[in-house]
Amino acid sequence: MYTSSAVVSSQAVPRALGKGRQTKAHIIDIALRTAAQLGLEGLSIGALAEATGMSKSGVFAHFGSRDDLQIAVVREYHARFEREVFMPAMAAPRGLPRLRALFDHWMRYTSAELDTGGCLFISGAVEFDDRPGPVRDALAHTVRLWTGALERAVTQAKAEGHLSARADEAQVAFEIHALILALHYEARFLRQPGAAERARRGFDNVLARHGERG
Amino acid sequence: MYTSSAVVSSQAVPRALGKGRQTKAHIIDIALRTAAQLGLEGLSIGALAEATGMSKSGVFAHFGSRDDLQIAVVREYHARFEREVFMPAMAAPRGLPRLRALFDHWMRYTSAELDTGGCLFISGAVEFDDRPGPVRDALAHTVRLWTGALERAVTQAKAEGHLSARADEAQVAFEIHALILALHYEARFLRQPGAAERARRGFDNVLARHGERG
Repeated sequence: MYTSSAVVSSQAVPRALGKGRQTKAHIIDIALRTAAQLGLEGLSIGALAEATGMSKSGVFAHFGSRDDLQIAVVREYHARFEREVFMPAMAAPRGLPRLRALFDHWMRYTSAELDTGGCLFISGAVEFDDRPGPVRDALAHTVRLWTGALERAVTQAKAEGHLSARADEAQVAFEIHALILALHYEARFLRQPGAAERARRGFDNVLARHGERG
Repeated sequence: MYTSSAVVSSQAVPRALGKGRQTKAHIIDIALRTAAQLGLEGLSIGALAEATGMSKSGVFAHFGSRDDLQIAVVREYHARFEREVFMPAMAAPRGLPRLRALFDHWMRYTSAELDTGGCLFISGAVEFDDRPGPVRDALAHTVRLWTGALERAVTQAKAEGHLSARADEAQVAFEIHALILALHYEARFLRQPGAAERARRGFDNVLARHGERG
């Protein structure tokens, strides 16, 4: 199930948190910004010690290893993504309105990231596609939770009679994911104008093909 | 115009080439394999000296800088892509058959790369999206040549009456490119079975939406 992560964002670290957890959340926040610029592989205990003004052993005390640090960053990225994309879309009625809301919020989130390092799910995929291990597993697991949520929204849209009963969930999710990947590629790398508009038209085309009736 | 590159592949280095050019082609060949594994940023004069058994100054003599080496690799990748994807598709009749052939060869090429380091146009985009300079420019230029070729094939398909006269070239090329990006992401990173089949169905869907009549 796609449930809310327990990771606490440092953007609103509750005062009630112990100092240790506050410090850890602060390190993760800085690590996330670093990863946006340099990639997950750009993270090191040493670089974070410098960025936070802590000693290496101080940073190390919160993360047993570089893997743990990278995984904590993946989880925090996921928690923010969930808060900004998944949760708000849940307010929309089941079926097509919710599927549209998921896409709209995803588009907005991805577009906002274009100038601040891009999407960690995309850069992380390139960094870790050939590197088996716990970081890759955490990243892939997170992405699958998200594509699973998309597929469930498609199932609901079928149940509500908004999409054709023949629509294949995995196919629709694949085609929607494809549009976000192309938006990221064309807008962020090629600096091609109009990519967001093309992704939106693409989404309407996907719905039309899969029998939008709502 | 999308014309054949002058870069000579070391897979078939003509004997008539001078020894210097043969050596250079050999270094580029090894550099391309290295880049497939480690990314363009994984290339260094030192690592290539080791891989080729040459001295650093020997390698350096062929490439004035690391940028030049990376650009030579981008050009060689492009030359091979062109030879395996673009050129064979030109044998198909203008219009929809050629557009299909471009997609089919692209699919085949991308699928074959999934186990050998993936697509340099995709990994390179993540590596260089935040790094202005000649390597990024060379990579983006190469990709734009390719998307331009796709758009021309769409124009021809419209002219032949195979696609709707209202079909927007950039939109169709965007949606096709999106499918390849999703294939690469889902098959290579997520190891999701069935991604190639979904990309093919997605392509048929794109054509159907844009008024396939041929």
